Amino acid sequence: MQLPKKVTICEVGPRDGFQQEKTIIPTAAKVDIINRVAASGVQVIEIGSFVHPKAVPQMADSDEVARRIEKMPGVQYRPFLTNLKGVERALACGLDRIKLSHAASESHNLSNFNQTIEQTVKGFEACVELAVKHNAVLSAALTVSFGCPFEGKVPLENIKAHVRRLNEYGIYEISLADTTGMANPNQVYGMMSDLVQTFPEVKWILHMHDTRGMALANILAAMQAGVSWFDASFSGLGGCPYAPGASGNVATEDLVHMLHEMGIETGIDLDQAIETARLARALVGHETDSRMLKAGKVSDLVLEKPKGQNKIS
Amino acid sequence: MQLPKKVTICEVGPRDGFQQEKTIIPTAAKVDIINRVAASGVQVIEIGSFVHPKAVPQMADSDEVARRIEKMPGVQYRPFLTNLKGVERALACGLDRIKLSHAASESHNLSNFNQTIEQTVKGFEACVELAVKHNAVLSAALTVSFGCPFEGKVPLENIKAHVRRLNEYGIYEISLADTTGMANPNQVYGMMSDLVQTFPEVKWILHMHDTRGMALANILAAMQAGVSWFDASFSGLGGCPYAPGASGNVATEDLVHMLHEMGIETGIDLDQAIETARLARALVGHETDSRMLKAGKVSDLVLEKPKGQNKIS
Repeated sequence: MQLPKKVTICEVGPRDGFQQEKTIIPTAAKVDIINRVAASGVQVIEIGSFVHPKAVPQMADSDEVARRIEKMPGVQYRPFLTNLKGVERALACGLDRIKLSHAASESHNLSNFNQTIEQTVKGFEACVELAVKHNAVLSAALTVSFGCPFEGKVPLENIKAHVRRLNEYGIYEISLADTTGMANPNQVYGMMSDLVQTFPEVKWILHMHDTRGMALANILAAMQAGVSWFDASFSGLGGCPYAPGASGNVATEDLVHMLHEMGIETGIDLDQAIETARLARALVGHETDSRMLKAGKVSDLVLEKPKGQNKIS
Repeated sequence: MQLPKKVTICEVGPRDGFQQEKTIIPTAAKVDIINRVAASGVQVIEIGSFVHPKAVPQMADSDEVARRIEKMPGVQYRPFLTNLKGVERALACGLDRIKLSHAASESHNLSNFNQTIEQTVKGFEACVELAVKHNAVLSAALTVSFGCPFEGKVPLENIKAHVRRLNEYGIYEISLADTTGMANPNQVYGMMSDLVQTFPEVKWILHMHDTRGMALANILAAMQAGVSWFDASFSGLGGCPYAPGASGNVATEDLVHMLHEMGIETGIDLDQAIETARLARALVGHETDSRMLKAGKVSDLVLEKPKGQNKIS
């Protein structure tokens, strides 16, 4: 089985996790948990969202969060945003990593951004210009890449066209999101094998939701296709807007646990990741789908070997 | 990605699922759900357990269940048992498939059966003799094959020795159980690739618990190693005795859903499997980890494509 030796995990809990919650998490708690995430060895963190505070009130304090977090050397702190105003806010907070986003399908882009893909992408021009002037590194996310709730599977040719357009903007770090949990391992392997080969210069990131339980299987398939960078969310927070009550993002601690069990390095301290997941669960105030919080690690399970061959009491 | 075209699923819910429940499921309800499982296209069903009723009171009515279920042609109805008394009861009910079991590790066998593996396996001799006399087909399960809570990983050489011993008894249908949810995809791929090659005449069955969320990923890895037969439990019932509150067996409906999404046939009607899972959840009277019951199928999600390119309301 062809697998990477090391995997990079981007923690999206502070953004994709907390923005789905009814409870608004206090700024100080966000700052604290982001600092803990960085301290646990995570090297990429999505810290918030520079969108309109009325649209996503949970992220209204992202500027303050960005200013107050401890900037650990070697850690990338990224905001999520969709337009020039967002880029301006990010730069004003001293962030040098910026993540733009549009949908992989026309219908979902219209539904989410009230714009055609062309209109949204056209708007990236000014974002890119400003970011480049400030030496900020750009990445992009294509939502519903593995299936759109309006259109079903998105043709691979459409994904490729979006990627070429992003490359024209100088964007080579591209995240494909399974926003609605529609991906399956066969599809992921086929798509990613093709894309990795077609775009050898692109750094691929996968953002898998665990809506139908397939996130870890999809990540296994993606690793076999050559992908070694994945988004994940502490305690599995986040979720699919079309399946309320279903599981959210793949849980960071569950993914780190599987990778470590497989002998794949992440640079992350699993015990600290589990503690962060516990804290995140306490902050949101409800049960989550974290397997580590329910079952513990495999290595916790191995009890002391009984002496001799006699009956174990 | 090398994958089988067709996968056989054995429904273990009536045995491994119901025996873990505090509630004792009424005989009539067991008979009804087993008939529904068979009607949905499942070809192998573990219908109960012929062990001492004091040890597992939930399975005390297995004889009556075995007698009352409709025997659909082409469907294998199997009991779980560990000794000669069990074989006698199975044969008396007209069953012609019998599943024996011992642990892959010495400590777990001592702990579970209060016998060494040698003592347990020695006891199989009489079981095999009687079964063969009645033309019953024997299969065997090795519990804790992917990790023992007392000893950790079980050496592959030990598994091979157990398999050779079972082969000597004429048993070639062998289930390896991840009783405690300790398997990871790398381990499963490595072990199963070796075993499939070493024992080409053995029909391998994997029994994966989803304790730490890895069951579907482990099944994906096993399929790539050439395994095409898996146990699963309706609604994900069952579980690991060492992780109370954690997930149980991989859910039949979630596994069927993933396989169908991947284009792999199972012969099972997914909608009927989901209805069975819903019924099983109602019978046990508590929430389960079934993703299908929480999120629905991918194909349920795809809404009507919006007309034209205008804003979607």
